[in-house]
Amino acid sequence: MTDVKFKKLALIGIGLIGSSIARSVKAHGLADEIVCAARTADTRRIALELGIVDAAYENPVDAVKGADLVILCTPIGTYGPLAATIGPALEAGTILTDVGSVKEAVVKAVTPHLPDYVDFIPGHPVAGTEKSGPAAGFAELFIGRWFILTPTPKSSHEGLEKLTAFWTAMGSKVETMDPAHHDLVLAITSHIPHLIAYNIVGTADDLEDVTQSEVIKYSAGGFRDFTRIAASDPTMWRDVFLHNKDAVLEMLGRFSEDLTALQRAIRREDGDTLFEIFSRTRAIRRQIIDAGQETAEPDFGRIHSPDDE
Amino acid sequence: MTDVKFKKLALIGIGLIGSSIARSVKAHGLADEIVCAARTADTRRIALELGIVDAAYENPVDAVKGADLVILCTPIGTYGPLAATIGPALEAGTILTDVGSVKEAVVKAVTPHLPDYVDFIPGHPVAGTEKSGPAAGFAELFIGRWFILTPTPKSSHEGLEKLTAFWTAMGSKVETMDPAHHDLVLAITSHIPHLIAYNIVGTADDLEDVTQSEVIKYSAGGFRDFTRIAASDPTMWRDVFLHNKDAVLEMLGRFSEDLTALQRAIRREDGDTLFEIFSRTRAIRRQIIDAGQETAEPDFGRIHSPDDE
Repeated sequence: MTDVKFKKLALIGIGLIGSSIARSVKAHGLADEIVCAARTADTRRIALELGIVDAAYENPVDAVKGADLVILCTPIGTYGPLAATIGPALEAGTILTDVGSVKEAVVKAVTPHLPDYVDFIPGHPVAGTEKSGPAAGFAELFIGRWFILTPTPKSSHEGLEKLTAFWTAMGSKVETMDPAHHDLVLAITSHIPHLIAYNIVGTADDLEDVTQSEVIKYSAGGFRDFTRIAASDPTMWRDVFLHNKDAVLEMLGRFSEDLTALQRAIRREDGDTLFEIFSRTRAIRRQIIDAGQETAEPDFGRIHSPDDE
Repeated sequence: MTDVKFKKLALIGIGLIGSSIARSVKAHGLADEIVCAARTADTRRIALELGIVDAAYENPVDAVKGADLVILCTPIGTYGPLAATIGPALEAGTILTDVGSVKEAVVKAVTPHLPDYVDFIPGHPVAGTEKSGPAAGFAELFIGRWFILTPTPKSSHEGLEKLTAFWTAMGSKVETMDPAHHDLVLAITSHIPHLIAYNIVGTADDLEDVTQSEVIKYSAGGFRDFTRIAASDPTMWRDVFLHNKDAVLEMLGRFSEDLTALQRAIRREDGDTLFEIFSRTRAIRRQIIDAGQETAEPDFGRIHSPDDE
């Protein structure tokens, strides 16, 4: 493993992911100095009180000064304006990366604002919980989880190696992917699951003939698992759907078509079709277990969260 | 609490639920004798080897002989023919109940076949895992879970009290409900969540531009939670959808309408609508946590399963 160490890490945003990075970087000694930028005074105060950053700034330009690694950890809708703000303040050779759940739109939003001497390497840790804010983070969040790098044609080979070593040191398994393909894969494995979880929880909230207290009381029958996903950060997810629109609409179209076929099978009382579909999906579960991607916990990382202990 | 004890419990079917009942009844001494009926020789052999029943019969008529409590634990599609078979063999005052996830169709299928002197009291434990078969059961499955009784106009008050005491002794919280209302509540809290989980796993399986190994590899982003639900027993769930058709189609119609509205908001890049919906659902999650219905485990009961330990 490359011996990786940055002089100064600047985290733009210090929510669940940003604060988890700060904790993990500190735990593994991956940077001499960790600073953050956060919009609200409250967030900056909490980050400082938690002792996870050495300094916290309101203005991201102050945070990135002298930084050799800058990570965007805010909702992706802010990336364009942020890049325009910090771009001129970044130093030559600085690695700029991010943790956004969408990659093609991020490349388009950020790249135009950067000087040529900045090494922009977009990335996405496939990790998280439904909790938000600097207090929700924990150092172990990335252990055993995938980190997907989606380099642009201008990303340097050296920067790519250094960033790979950085995430590997935090416990992640690093994979490289084309940004557009990343967006398609994540649309089906993450974005659509979140969308339909948000949707069914909303549907249940609107019923007149079933009370909300009944929904809550009997949620263990399956609904509960969806509410956990549907408790994820609304701003982050709004931005995901706005910025991965094409892939999400494509996958949603397929999902709806398939659901209509299931609905039709139920209406026609076509038990064979139902049985065939329900048997097929069981095989996929087995493969996930075989691939070691299954854990007893709803989200691998959550058990480490101080809130749960 | 009523001191409850049956002479002979006959379990018709000894899968996940039946075998969990057998284990729990044995652990709490709720019956002098426990027998089961199972179609296949293999299942009967396993049940006997596990030591959870005193006898196992192929013919359910043999199992119910002399039983004062009979519980139907097979997929609900079998209930009608089963009731016709065992009805004449049931003794006066015997309590007949079930564990089916649908109640109105069960009442309709079973009642016509029963002699007047049989005390039929339908029920539904809101508990389970995605595993099947007699080896998958465990005695703690019902602890802290709801058990819903849906008595018919002919169910006796005495039988209702005895069955309530029986399920309470196994750790359940018992609630009484109208069969039709049960089916509506469970359609949204359990049946639709299962249907859309089955559906998205099927959709992911059919993609050409995303490989199955990619879906499995990156399933931690949300998809994984759905695959667990979609690994549930296909026969049981086929029968649920065939027998709760009206309530499921009603709820599915609402779900699809809401999903179309979300799709439209994404297509129009209407961030405010997305944010509003995503914020609202977060509040419901909080209520589930407040109601103590949330557990760290994906399914409360699973941690007790020998397979997971």
